[in-house]
Amino acid sequence: MSTTLGELAEQFDCQLQGSPAVAVDHVDSLVNADATAISFLSNAALKSQLETTGAAAVILREGDAGDSPVPVLVSDNPYATYANIAAVLHPSRTLRPGVHASAVVDDDADVAESAEIGPHAVIEAGAKVGEHAYVGPGCVVGPGCVVGEATRLLGRVTLVEDVRMGDRCLVHPGAVIGADGFGNAMTPTGWVKVPQVGGVTIGDDVEIGANTTIDCGAIDDTVIGNGVRIDNLCMIAHNVIIGEHTAMAAQVGIAGSARIGSRCLFAGHSGTVGHIEVCDDVVVTGKTMITKSITEPGAYSSGWAGEPAKSWAKTVARVRRLGSLVDRVAKLEKDNK
Amino acid sequence: MSTTLGELAEQFDCQLQGSPAVAVDHVDSLVNADATAISFLSNAALKSQLETTGAAAVILREGDAGDSPVPVLVSDNPYATYANIAAVLHPSRTLRPGVHASAVVDDDADVAESAEIGPHAVIEAGAKVGEHAYVGPGCVVGPGCVVGEATRLLGRVTLVEDVRMGDRCLVHPGAVIGADGFGNAMTPTGWVKVPQVGGVTIGDDVEIGANTTIDCGAIDDTVIGNGVRIDNLCMIAHNVIIGEHTAMAAQVGIAGSARIGSRCLFAGHSGTVGHIEVCDDVVVTGKTMITKSITEPGAYSSGWAGEPAKSWAKTVARVRRLGSLVDRVAKLEKDNK
Amino acid sequence: MSTTLGELAEQFDCQLQGSPAVAVDHVDSLVNADATAISFLSNAALKSQLETTGAAAVILREGDAGDSPVPVLVSDNPYATYANIAAVLHPSRTLRPGVHASAVVDDDADVAESAEIGPHAVIEAGAKVGEHAYVGPGCVVGPGCVVGEATRLLGRVTLVEDVRMGDRCLVHPGAVIGADGFGNAMTPTGWVKVPQVGGVTIGDDVEIGANTTIDCGAIDDTVIGNGVRIDNLCMIAHNVIIGEHTAMAAQVGIAGSARIGSRCLFAGHSGTVGHIEVCDDVVVTGKTMITKSITEPGAYSSGWAGEPAKSWAKTVARVRRLGSLVDRVAKLEKDNK
Repeated sequence: MSTTLGELAEQFDCQLQGSPAVAVDHVDSLVNADATAISFLSNAALKSQLETTGAAAVILREGDAGDSPVPVLVSDNPYATYANIAAVLHPSRTLRPGVHASAVVDDDADVAESAEIGPHAVIEAGAKVGEHAYVGPGCVVGPGCVVGEATRLLGRVTLVEDVRMGDRCLVHPGAVIGADGFGNAMTPTGWVKVPQVGGVTIGDDVEIGANTTIDCGAIDDTVIGNGVRIDNLCMIAHNVIIGEHTAMAAQVGIAGSARIGSRCLFAGHSGTVGHIEVCDDVVVTGKTMITKSITEPGAYSSGWAGEPAKSWAKTVARVRRLGSLVDRVAKLEKDNK
Repeated sequence: MSTTLGELAEQFDCQLQGSPAVAVDHVDSLVNADATAISFLSNAALKSQLETTGAAAVILREGDAGDSPVPVLVSDNPYATYANIAAVLHPSRTLRPGVHASAVVDDDADVAESAEIGPHAVIEAGAKVGEHAYVGPGCVVGPGCVVGEATRLLGRVTLVEDVRMGDRCLVHPGAVIGADGFGNAMTPTGWVKVPQVGGVTIGDDVEIGANTTIDCGAIDDTVIGNGVRIDNLCMIAHNVIIGEHTAMAAQVGIAGSARIGSRCLFAGHSGTVGHIEVCDDVVVTGKTMITKSITEPGAYSSGWAGEPAKSWAKTVARVRRLGSLVDRVAKLEKDNK
Repeated sequence: MSTTLGELAEQFDCQLQGSPAVAVDHVDSLVNADATAISFLSNAALKSQLETTGAAAVILREGDAGDSPVPVLVSDNPYATYANIAAVLHPSRTLRPGVHASAVVDDDADVAESAEIGPHAVIEAGAKVGEHAYVGPGCVVGPGCVVGEATRLLGRVTLVEDVRMGDRCLVHPGAVIGADGFGNAMTPTGWVKVPQVGGVTIGDDVEIGANTTIDCGAIDDTVIGNGVRIDNLCMIAHNVIIGEHTAMAAQVGIAGSARIGSRCLFAGHSGTVGHIEVCDDVVVTGKTMITKSITEPGAYSSGWAGEPAKSWAKTVARVRRLGSLVDRVAKLEKDNK
């Protein structure tokens, strides 16, 4: 859609430098933007791109406004303002309320009239789909599941059973929420499956990535707080509790019954063992493994940065010989006495 | 469903402390249980919860029975007894034999009359679905695949081709079994795909997690033994062989042609390189990478526990300077001679 | 299908040692091959299997030909020749052009007559499916997506939106291409979603593994070069660019805006941070984390090989005490002055 800088400045409370009549109809990068695009600068390293941008306008901080060759929307947080404006110019697909002819909706399911149920979706008995919700092609919404108002399940999402999602959530394709937790009791004749009778409770405004899995609780629920962001291919095990606004990058794994605080950030391939607590405002860097509870906010690490394989091999060999180095130092100390 | 302590004691061969007439109809945690719930204590750390539990009864070890304020089922293995009782009180959904009107079953597929084929499932030519099997919504059972008796594929599982599953298996949503192994031959003009003509053989009583992938063999089959447990988002590559009752937590990766023994345990994010053998009864701890064959049972590790990022940075810097430390020690030794 | 050694020798330009009339109809391993199978030897470690093979013929290097008890096709690259011959003997399933009655194809989609659209597939408005393409059961091809000529999407693949795939690609079940990148702007009240308005551009002859996810670009496209091979459960984040013929094993994660060169190899569980560049011909070994741009071809590592847990615990403890070891050496040096 198309709008003007004046309207955007008013809607998002930005100071405008330039003509309010300038029209924009899409967002683009500084480098590729044309005269109908609005762009943004939030990373100082890209400032050189500002000088030559062909954008109709740019969103940036007050301190950078003087360097812009084009009209400016001034924002304290250009990236967030960009996000809001991009949402205006590139709105989500409008819902087409109703149930597609190929969808299978159980008579005992409760689907709001304003919701859209896509092709080949399956809504099982006892499920509830809220107002203005979207259940995309090939999704399965199992017994006792609740899809909140304006929550959108894109294609091929599975809510297994007793998964209660809040409002305005967004779940990407292939995500599986509410599958059995990994509960097994060892016996002399092998594993006995431990029935997983809990559900999953998910807050409002949660986004869940493609092919991510969030297991149901063993007895009580697995719980995901409001505003949580989980990227693709993450694993949230049974009875994990995740605090509000925590974000996890791809391929993170949180083991069973771990309790993660609010506003934490987990980088890719990181994870925690089970049955620990991580307090609020913790940052876990890439590939780090958290093995004990964390009670102090801050950054935590155990990942090694890659280096040329030959020098790495030397490092590894030296570490493996540390015992003998310790012995040699002890001998030197003894000799020196 | 509802039953009595007397019936449970008899069925699972437990000594009963209390009235056999006490009725229970669900399981719950010690903390949340009410007067119709049965709970369990298998972790000594939770013993304080026993004193105040509102449960109708508790399953625990003989040594703990004296401390229970409520009736007790005494068991040598309370967790396994709990699992069995939970399965009685919370049975799997009863099958509705037959093929859903929206399912697509090829004329040359062989589906037992007692099996249930869910909405939008696809059963291709030459596939076979056994007695009392369940093929859930959106599943695809490809050519030459066999779903054993009472085996259940929950929603959106794909068996690609020549996947032969045993009896009483359980496969969670999104799992893909029998996709092509990663076989590529380098040539001067790029990769040539190596056709993957093997299948997958899966034993009885195997459980496979959500969005896990098990590739077909390059020539011979990939093989998963009886009673194996594989959690979510694991990767089992072509021609891997996994022994009976081995369990793998989420996001484990086993590379091609690795041969894993029986009763092994792999923790999250761990894995092995290809073409190695791991003997029976090996435990691989979190994030560990196994690069050579293992011939002795026991625990193996290479994961680093996370610590505050600043202290970790110091550790890393010291390790990278180990070479100069070694030189300094050598110089001291020389000077001391 | 069946053919003769003479025909294969001619088709793949191999020298033939033995009778051209010998017929073969499948490939098999040296150990299991029978008199209608052709096998290959490319790994010297398996040479002992050659002596007793029951194969009708074997593909091998000239230097090994003298040791073969059976007819030989001589090749400079036996593995690649094997791959080509296996493709002849085990061809992909023949397409059945047309749209399955249960598929849902939007009136505004453009599907070639020679393409096959499988059961329960969904082709949305503005999508295009090329000649001889295959869209398997349960796939979703979203708005603006292009499935190139002879490209095959096996079951339950999702192309979300504006995913443009080249010709002769192969995508395995459960892959999700074009889901939103992980873009979030922090504000005092929580995350604001950054709309992801870019698409995905995929070259020709690309293979993408089961349950792998490739996100769409934030503004510009995510780009996968010709001939790239990506294994299962990999994560390719928004705006990543991958050069031609690069191969990534399972569970690799490439973070946003990373630019990976051509002919790179990434082993399992490895990955990179975002916004870096990796030059051509780089090998990243298992579990390695690349945190800085790489400008020199070669192998890079940061993975630790597993060892018995007790000795690993000692190694870890010694590393954690390195600071005091450094102090002790410094004291020795001072005392020695």
